[in-house]
Amino acid sequence: MELSVAITQIEVKRISDNELVDHSDDLAVEEPLEIRLGFADGTHQAVSITMRTPGEDSELAVGFLFTEGILKSPDQVKQVRHCGLKIGKSTGTLDRAAALNSNTIRVDLAENVELDLKKLERHFYTTSSCGVCGKSSIEALQTGATRIESELTVNADIIHRLPETLRAAQSTFDKTGGLHASALFEADGSLVIVREDVGRHNALDKVIGTKFMEDNVPLSDKILLVSGRASFELVQKALMAGIPILAAVGAPSSLAVELASEFGMTLIGFVRDGRFNIYCGEQRVLLTANSSELTAIP
Amino acid sequence: MELSVAITQIEVKRISDNELVDHSDDLAVEEPLEIRLGFADGTHQAVSITMRTPGEDSELAVGFLFTEGILKSPDQVKQVRHCGLKIGKSTGTLDRAAALNSNTIRVDLAENVELDLKKLERHFYTTSSCGVCGKSSIEALQTGATRIESELTVNADIIHRLPETLRAAQSTFDKTGGLHASALFEADGSLVIVREDVGRHNALDKVIGTKFMEDNVPLSDKILLVSGRASFELVQKALMAGIPILAAVGAPSSLAVELASEFGMTLIGFVRDGRFNIYCGEQRVLLTANSSELTAIP
Repeated sequence: MELSVAITQIEVKRISDNELVDHSDDLAVEEPLEIRLGFADGTHQAVSITMRTPGEDSELAVGFLFTEGILKSPDQVKQVRHCGLKIGKSTGTLDRAAALNSNTIRVDLAENVELDLKKLERHFYTTSSCGVCGKSSIEALQTGATRIESELTVNADIIHRLPETLRAAQSTFDKTGGLHASALFEADGSLVIVREDVGRHNALDKVIGTKFMEDNVPLSDKILLVSGRASFELVQKALMAGIPILAAVGAPSSLAVELASEFGMTLIGFVRDGRFNIYCGEQRVLLTANSSELTAIP
Repeated sequence: MELSVAITQIEVKRISDNELVDHSDDLAVEEPLEIRLGFADGTHQAVSITMRTPGEDSELAVGFLFTEGILKSPDQVKQVRHCGLKIGKSTGTLDRAAALNSNTIRVDLAENVELDLKKLERHFYTTSSCGVCGKSSIEALQTGATRIESELTVNADIIHRLPETLRAAQSTFDKTGGLHASALFEADGSLVIVREDVGRHNALDKVIGTKFMEDNVPLSDKILLVSGRASFELVQKALMAGIPILAAVGAPSSLAVELASEFGMTLIGFVRDGRFNIYCGEQRVLLTANSSELTAIP
């Protein structure tokens, strides 16, 4: 079996029926990535360290900077490249995959690009005397998303089938059981792109970063499916990309529903076992029979 | 049904068998918490904002500061209290639960306590020209954990039963499907403490913070079970608390195994369906038949 940069093999002891057997297991690779901004004057600045699965680091970095409200358009980016050498630890197989990439990536800006770096501060050390106190939680964490006005609709039977399509397309998940996936779909249920990562926010940043670099945001006619739970952070990132429908295999959090509702996004959860829940924005989901509009059962 | 601060109810549209029904659904509450340090001279400083499920905020704050290597002993803490008022958004039921707590908590230090606040910087904006470049990933992210020397052993059949005990004790998970759990067990499989949160790292910080405030760390004779995957971050926090055995219902990441192995921790994954994998530190797991030592099956 060929080693991918996203998975690595390790010898484990498997205990089953009170017996121990040596077993070769696939693990999802997790490594830190430092994201740096390079300015036209030659200086650069680290803006984030994230624990991610190596692969599509450029898309991850650009997607992160876009969903945080720092980058606005792909022409602000001159180039994206790994910098520095990763000096690995000598632990055998674990390093073979990791060493393919360095763990620092630099997003070099085009000339005359001015960024609002203050937006990054919500992630970091704050020294104001106020902080979140006295602001509503959502205000404090917003990144400048605008209300979703998309008139996209989707049939309920298409929603039911999204997880199966995702699983069929996932390259790594079945081997390791340790990765989250994010995928974009057309309204007819056809898959556009899928990305995987140990961090659910990273998987989504990789998806959005790819579309951002193609100059294809906002994604007003796409459906996003995430393999796990829908947190505030995932809704916020999807909002930045203008995605009108976010479906999750798992549960949403209260703040995810609150944010989606406030910004006009359709939020769907528990897409499994032949059913799903719509938490807000139900006008975008059509029952299959009439394909016209949802009607509540009395 | 009584509303807990950790769950809230919301009306959803449930789609099943191509029919839509109105349904009342329980959601895990997610709200930001700003953690501040209060110094003896009356000044204070924000050190982190985390998205958490309200409840045990004091334990979460103290656990975070301890597992990040900032706090060393409970006598460094004078008091912990919420500060400020949460000004909620008027969105009905979602706020009723959240409004019970403010979203800022202050850990006031005792007099003459000197802290190494630089340790917090790994989470935040870094301005050095080096960053992770040229360091191994583990060095860059370490918080000062020391090698685990515990001689604790546990029978394999006890490991098999941990998830069932956890599920029986979880107060919120079954209602929402949206929470991670962390639990400590004695070597005989009896439950010591369980905590839940939308963030897996928060659930663990709540567990460790509780034990830290009781002056009961290191937890050299305890087993930790986490409901999901074992990431680098969870292993790092468990190491700080001196926990010798970390078991996960889900998969570990490569860096989690690397870190656990380097520091002498026993890391177990996929504890389900009557089996589990030992990734490192197998000398602490005994097969039930002889209860003496593991013997590899030829």
